[in-house]
Amino acid sequence: MKDLTVISREILETSLRALIILVLTGLLWWGIGRLVHVPLPKVDPERARRIEAALSLIRSLLRAVLLAVALLTLLSLLGLNLAPILTGAGIAGIIIGLGAQSLIRDLIAGLIIVLEDPFGIGETVRVAGVAGTVERITMRATYLRDADGTLHVIPNSMLGVVSNLSRDWAQVGVELPLPRDFRLEHLELLMQSAAEALAQDPEVAEALLQPPAFAGIEGISETAITVRIEARARPRARWTVARRMRYHLVQALQTLHSQQVE
Amino acid sequence: MKDLTVISREILETSLRALIILVLTGLLWWGIGRLVHVPLPKVDPERARRIEAALSLIRSLLRAVLLAVALLTLLSLLGLNLAPILTGAGIAGIIIGLGAQSLIRDLIAGLIIVLEDPFGIGETVRVAGVAGTVERITMRATYLRDADGTLHVIPNSMLGVVSNLSRDWAQVGVELPLPRDFRLEHLELLMQSAAEALAQDPEVAEALLQPPAFAGIEGISETAITVRIEARARPRARWTVARRMRYHLVQALQTLHSQQVE
Amino acid sequence: MKDLTVISREILETSLRALIILVLTGLLWWGIGRLVHVPLPKVDPERARRIEAALSLIRSLLRAVLLAVALLTLLSLLGLNLAPILTGAGIAGIIIGLGAQSLIRDLIAGLIIVLEDPFGIGETVRVAGVAGTVERITMRATYLRDADGTLHVIPNSMLGVVSNLSRDWAQVGVELPLPRDFRLEHLELLMQSAAEALAQDPEVAEALLQPPAFAGIEGISETAITVRIEARARPRARWTVARRMRYHLVQALQTLHSQQVE
Amino acid sequence: MKDLTVISREILETSLRALIILVLTGLLWWGIGRLVHVPLPKVDPERARRIEAALSLIRSLLRAVLLAVALLTLLSLLGLNLAPILTGAGIAGIIIGLGAQSLIRDLIAGLIIVLEDPFGIGETVRVAGVAGTVERITMRATYLRDADGTLHVIPNSMLGVVSNLSRDWAQVGVELPLPRDFRLEHLELLMQSAAEALAQDPEVAEALLQPPAFAGIEGISETAITVRIEARARPRARWTVARRMRYHLVQALQTLHSQQVE
Amino acid sequence: MKDLTVISREILETSLRALIILVLTGLLWWGIGRLVHVPLPKVDPERARRIEAALSLIRSLLRAVLLAVALLTLLSLLGLNLAPILTGAGIAGIIIGLGAQSLIRDLIAGLIIVLEDPFGIGETVRVAGVAGTVERITMRATYLRDADGTLHVIPNSMLGVVSNLSRDWAQVGVELPLPRDFRLEHLELLMQSAAEALAQDPEVAEALLQPPAFAGIEGISETAITVRIEARARPRARWTVARRMRYHLVQALQTLHSQQVE
Amino acid sequence: MKDLTVISREILETSLRALIILVLTGLLWWGIGRLVHVPLPKVDPERARRIEAALSLIRSLLRAVLLAVALLTLLSLLGLNLAPILTGAGIAGIIIGLGAQSLIRDLIAGLIIVLEDPFGIGETVRVAGVAGTVERITMRATYLRDADGTLHVIPNSMLGVVSNLSRDWAQVGVELPLPRDFRLEHLELLMQSAAEALAQDPEVAEALLQPPAFAGIEGISETAITVRIEARARPRARWTVARRMRYHLVQALQTLHSQQVE
Amino acid sequence: MKDLTVISREILETSLRALIILVLTGLLWWGIGRLVHVPLPKVDPERARRIEAALSLIRSLLRAVLLAVALLTLLSLLGLNLAPILTGAGIAGIIIGLGAQSLIRDLIAGLIIVLEDPFGIGETVRVAGVAGTVERITMRATYLRDADGTLHVIPNSMLGVVSNLSRDWAQVGVELPLPRDFRLEHLELLMQSAAEALAQDPEVAEALLQPPAFAGIEGISETAITVRIEARARPRARWTVARRMRYHLVQALQTLHSQQVE
Repeated sequence: MKDLTVISREILETSLRALIILVLTGLLWWGIGRLVHVPLPKVDPERARRIEAALSLIRSLLRAVLLAVALLTLLSLLGLNLAPILTGAGIAGIIIGLGAQSLIRDLIAGLIIVLEDPFGIGETVRVAGVAGTVERITMRATYLRDADGTLHVIPNSMLGVVSNLSRDWAQVGVELPLPRDFRLEHLELLMQSAAEALAQDPEVAEALLQPPAFAGIEGISETAITVRIEARARPRARWTVARRMRYHLVQALQTLHSQQVE
Repeated sequence: MKDLTVISREILETSLRALIILVLTGLLWWGIGRLVHVPLPKVDPERARRIEAALSLIRSLLRAVLLAVALLTLLSLLGLNLAPILTGAGIAGIIIGLGAQSLIRDLIAGLIIVLEDPFGIGETVRVAGVAGTVERITMRATYLRDADGTLHVIPNSMLGVVSNLSRDWAQVGVELPLPRDFRLEHLELLMQSAAEALAQDPEVAEALLQPPAFAGIEGISETAITVRIEARARPRARWTVARRMRYHLVQALQTLHSQQVE
Repeated sequence: MKDLTVISREILETSLRALIILVLTGLLWWGIGRLVHVPLPKVDPERARRIEAALSLIRSLLRAVLLAVALLTLLSLLGLNLAPILTGAGIAGIIIGLGAQSLIRDLIAGLIIVLEDPFGIGETVRVAGVAGTVERITMRATYLRDADGTLHVIPNSMLGVVSNLSRDWAQVGVELPLPRDFRLEHLELLMQSAAEALAQDPEVAEALLQPPAFAGIEGISETAITVRIEARARPRARWTVARRMRYHLVQALQTLHSQQVE
Repeated sequence: MKDLTVISREILETSLRALIILVLTGLLWWGIGRLVHVPLPKVDPERARRIEAALSLIRSLLRAVLLAVALLTLLSLLGLNLAPILTGAGIAGIIIGLGAQSLIRDLIAGLIIVLEDPFGIGETVRVAGVAGTVERITMRATYLRDADGTLHVIPNSMLGVVSNLSRDWAQVGVELPLPRDFRLEHLELLMQSAAEALAQDPEVAEALLQPPAFAGIEGISETAITVRIEARARPRARWTVARRMRYHLVQALQTLHSQQVE
Repeated sequence: MKDLTVISREILETSLRALIILVLTGLLWWGIGRLVHVPLPKVDPERARRIEAALSLIRSLLRAVLLAVALLTLLSLLGLNLAPILTGAGIAGIIIGLGAQSLIRDLIAGLIIVLEDPFGIGETVRVAGVAGTVERITMRATYLRDADGTLHVIPNSMLGVVSNLSRDWAQVGVELPLPRDFRLEHLELLMQSAAEALAQDPEVAEALLQPPAFAGIEGISETAITVRIEARARPRARWTVARRMRYHLVQALQTLHSQQVE
Repeated sequence: MKDLTVISREILETSLRALIILVLTGLLWWGIGRLVHVPLPKVDPERARRIEAALSLIRSLLRAVLLAVALLTLLSLLGLNLAPILTGAGIAGIIIGLGAQSLIRDLIAGLIIVLEDPFGIGETVRVAGVAGTVERITMRATYLRDADGTLHVIPNSMLGVVSNLSRDWAQVGVELPLPRDFRLEHLELLMQSAAEALAQDPEVAEALLQPPAFAGIEGISETAITVRIEARARPRARWTVARRMRYHLVQALQTLHSQQVE
Repeated sequence: MKDLTVISREILETSLRALIILVLTGLLWWGIGRLVHVPLPKVDPERARRIEAALSLIRSLLRAVLLAVALLTLLSLLGLNLAPILTGAGIAGIIIGLGAQSLIRDLIAGLIIVLEDPFGIGETVRVAGVAGTVERITMRATYLRDADGTLHVIPNSMLGVVSNLSRDWAQVGVELPLPRDFRLEHLELLMQSAAEALAQDPEVAEALLQPPAFAGIEGISETAITVRIEARARPRARWTVARRMRYHLVQALQTLHSQQVE
């Protein structure tokens, strides 16, 4: 026989449990705010803003899950059958987990980019088979503008190996095929005059970090020997430096030829 | 012994629970309408229409799931065994999740296209190994018309890296192989006369954003040096500009030759 | 002590629950007929027939699942242990979901083809690395006949990007390599005489939507310049038009040569 | 207190439930025989035999599952804990589903081949990167004998796109490169004499469905123009017809040359 | 109140259930021995031994699972909580199913090889990108010795398409490029003298199943026509026959040349 | 009403169950030691040591799982709710199963290498696209040193097809292109003198298992015939033998030429 | 009827269970600290620091899981329904397991790198299609700087086969194509003079571990024979040594030519 005592005791117990749930929920709500936190970079306010946005998104997601779980636990105190809701949520979870995998991967990869900073806006990178200057970074995709003006939108999960061409310095190498009977004694002369011309070239003088030097013979085919000249330059000037090196090499070679003919 | 009091109390409790379910369902129904919402772009009514359609679809899906869960919870109040329904739904969910993955991915990718706008109708893009002008965008697929008139239907989940060729500007580069003994002194002359001819060419004059310029020597082979000339043009005119640049370069070269012969 | 009252009450409750199951099953049966429905295209009775067949298949599948679930729920009212049946069904579901994935994908892709109509019977398409004219479309596979007479049977899930060559128009381009010292002044003459000959060619006259025109110089190699002439034609005649364009170009070139020799 | 009435009532209920299980099992046993059934092709007894064997295998599998489920449900009536059996079966199901996927896919693909008949014994097909004549078709694999006498055993799940070379007709095309100054006036003459010679060739006369005709100019390179001649033949004779067409083309060309020299 | 009657009845019931478990286990133990059985090939005792070993392995595995399930069911009769054991087994099953997939696939593929016999020891096959003579077949891997003496160990699951070069016969084809002005009248003569020389060659006489014959012209390039001669030989002699055919063709060609010079 | 009898009986039952768990755990602990056992190879103590280490690792893993399961079952006897622990373990199992798949695969593949011995330390193998001499084999990776001195660390699961170049013998083949008018009568002479020189070459004399012999003509191109000479050598000397064969062939050819000139 | 005795007994039992949970949690907390431990390398403090950081991370993760499980078990003692929390955790686990797979793989691969040390900072490696000097190793990614100055960020799970070019020694090989009529008698002379020049070359003298030697003839084409010279050098000097070897070979060859001409 259930008398009033029992009922009042049940109400008491249920209230106590509801209280525990509410207190725990509050604690976790506050804990999420404390734990989801990383030191923000001071020198780059733009990146700090993106990190803050990403963390804020994560905190909101975690709190939404927390609220849903707390709500369901409270409902179960009222004697409701939670099986349909939980099964529904489980199926949805699996379907979304399978179907939206690439989206979730994009977001996780986007979070890693924001935190690790393998490239920043304005840097030139080579990723996923395309190369270009980074124009925009969102949580889902990275926008590159390549040299042709084409805008590439790359889902973050497809980035893979990131090759950043804008860090610190660039080694510029130019190869020049010469006939197999080209006298090696002339090589030094050729290299020297090309290097001098390059050093005085106003277009590249500032971009050079190390003067050009003869690297050596890179290959010998049946009809030619290929020599290589190298210089170290600022990353952005790498293509200009290479073109000017080729120009002065060809010019020095033509001068050499005309001298020999005389 | 169960007397009437007990039965009436059971009926009361069940009614109370049903009421809670109905109220929660109503709240969530209304909440879905409020939360599934993004600001619509004002300048592009066509895209706004597509976003609205996509959101409406999501809202309907969520509400159908909500109704099914609410209905099942009500049925469980009547003492029905929900295991068969839930297992059936679970199996169906897994099978569909595995079998219809690519369809779900198409729809999710379609949603992202609608929201992120990496390309619009009329723009020229390169995706999934084909290139063409976007003719139509649906939730499942993107329709491209390529230069040959072929219509490509690309499931949205296969889009991958989207390369948009119609944004802002296009850099047009033309390469011209010259014999290795071509005098570099003549290069400047050649470039200048070709650039002048291009600037006066009525077919491309309006499309040019920056006049053509000598970029440099791109490569040196055993028999040739390859020079490059570049110009910046409006995206749509990139192929016409390239062809006219080649035309004027060849013409300038032939003129130069005939002058030397004289 | 269970007296008759209790037993009769149990029977009453069970009957009530069985009634609810039967009513719900009936409602869902009718609802499946109402919801699985799309507007049929009026202009293409063959496609309408295929859509109707696909929908009918889906309706039958859904109703079979409905009946099985209803039957199991009724059995559970009689106190039978459903665990073996449900586990058996679950295992079967996972095994089939993994093993028959490609079949399920074929059917879902077949359904999409029927509803979206990216290609129809008699159109020429390029899919999954093969090209040909569509001869037959089933729920599982598409049958293509290629130009060699080979019949390709392509599972629908392997279709991927569908490239339809039979829609609206075809741009026909022909490239002609010329020696690097070919005078550009003669190009216009050459193009004109070839275009005239083509326009009067009875084999292609009707197929041309736009007369052939000089597109420009497509490439410059060390030994040749390659020019391109383009015309717009009906899709089916694209190969014939290209061959006749090549024929008239070669003829015009030979005529030009013989005139220069004279 | 459980007195005899209660015990006898329990026995009664259990017997009733066992009866329901047995009746349902019997009905499903009979239903499997009725439902797993397709109309057999009358013209091809060999294929009818293979279909019958496949259906028989499916029926046996379904009935084995049915028996196992019925047995387990009966055992649960005796109060046995089924959890170990069901968990064991579940784990086995997942492991086999993951490990034996390719075998299950082979069998399902084999079933589809038997029912859809994309190729038959004796036909020449190109599948999974190999080509040859079909020698044998089993539920798991297809046996091809290629032109070198090599026997290829291809698991059915690897078939992918099936290209059947033995259906209805074959279009035979032969390409002939000619020097760029070859007079187009002579082409017609050349084609005509080759076509005549082919029509009178006893080796191919019966195999030709359409006489050979000049298709057109397929390509223009810096040094040659390539012309194409086509004929329609019976599928099996396609390689012989191509070889004889080449033979007569070369002969006609040599005759033409010798006439010009004279 | 539980008196002794109740306790003795519980003991009775539990004993009865244990008995049923033991009887069923015995029946299944015996049934596994009867069902896992295939007819052994009489002509190949080595293969019969391998089949017997594979079946014995399967029987042991099935019986181990049977014992484990029976033991657990007995334990549950004693009131032990099986959840930890079952969960542990389930997790282990999933991890192994995912991690040891390729091993399980190897064994299943090895079983299929033993039963289907697509190749035997001593035969030459081409599988998974390598070719060689089969030296050893185990349940996990196949050992091939290629012509260089390299021993390839191929996991059975990587076999894919098996190409068996040792069955019945081999078609040997040799291609010979000739200058485009080679008189076709001489071809027959050339083929005849090469065929005669080959027929009398002691190295290949026994290996030939069909005498060599002129197959036809396989291709026409700008500078050459390529003719093909074919013969049918025993599989093992295919490379020797091809080399001898080339030898006699070159010799016949050189004789022809010297005759023409005279 | 629960009196002391009931409580003492509960304690008795629980103790009994705990005893069964402890006995079973002990039996399984001992059984793991007996069953995880393979015969160790006597001739190769290094390999025996690696097998023993691998088995010891497996035994420890199995015993850790056994202890955990036994502990949990004991805890459940005390009335603790195991659901959180089991769910936690289950989730961890799935995440690790998915995330650490490649590590588990490496270990399983490492175990197979230890047991099957497809290659040993000091042998030259070609695996996963790299070739070299095996320097070290661990459970996770194989270390190869290639001819350039590069050290390749290959995760065991990436090994795939293992090609062992150090077993028993090596067939060395050298191909020599000759002009098309090279008289076949001279071939024998050329081969003979090269074979003799090789047989007397001190660098390779000991490495030869079979003297070099003329294999035949491997190919005929428009400008050359390629002949092949083969010898069988010890595996380690295969590259030296090939180089010496080439050396003597070139020398014999030059001698032949100079004789013809005289 | 529940009297106070029962309630006090319930409280006692619950307290006892809570105590067991707390004691076990404490033991496991301490055990994690003891078991997650590896011997640190003494010679490389930087690597020891990285190992310590990785272990510390693993310990924190394990303890967080331990705390969560202990907390949930305590909550269940208070009669709270854990189903929502556990289901929520399960769904989250599956979604993260699927979506964050590559991140988890990166971390596990990073852990393996830290423990196995296949490469260290400052070494040159070739991984995942890029080559360069290792600049930084984190748990998620490896940073390479290639010869062009490009910084490659490679997720650890993409490393695959690691090819370390900086271990112990490097074999440097240079190939030199010579005309087919080059007298082999001169080869020795050529090699000797090149080897002597190299030995006296100040740029490479210290880097050589073994003097250069003639390896043999690597290949014979229709127009050339290719000889190979090899030397063993310190890994970092491999490219310099190769270039100097080429330089001295070309010089020796030119000297030889000029001597022959005289």
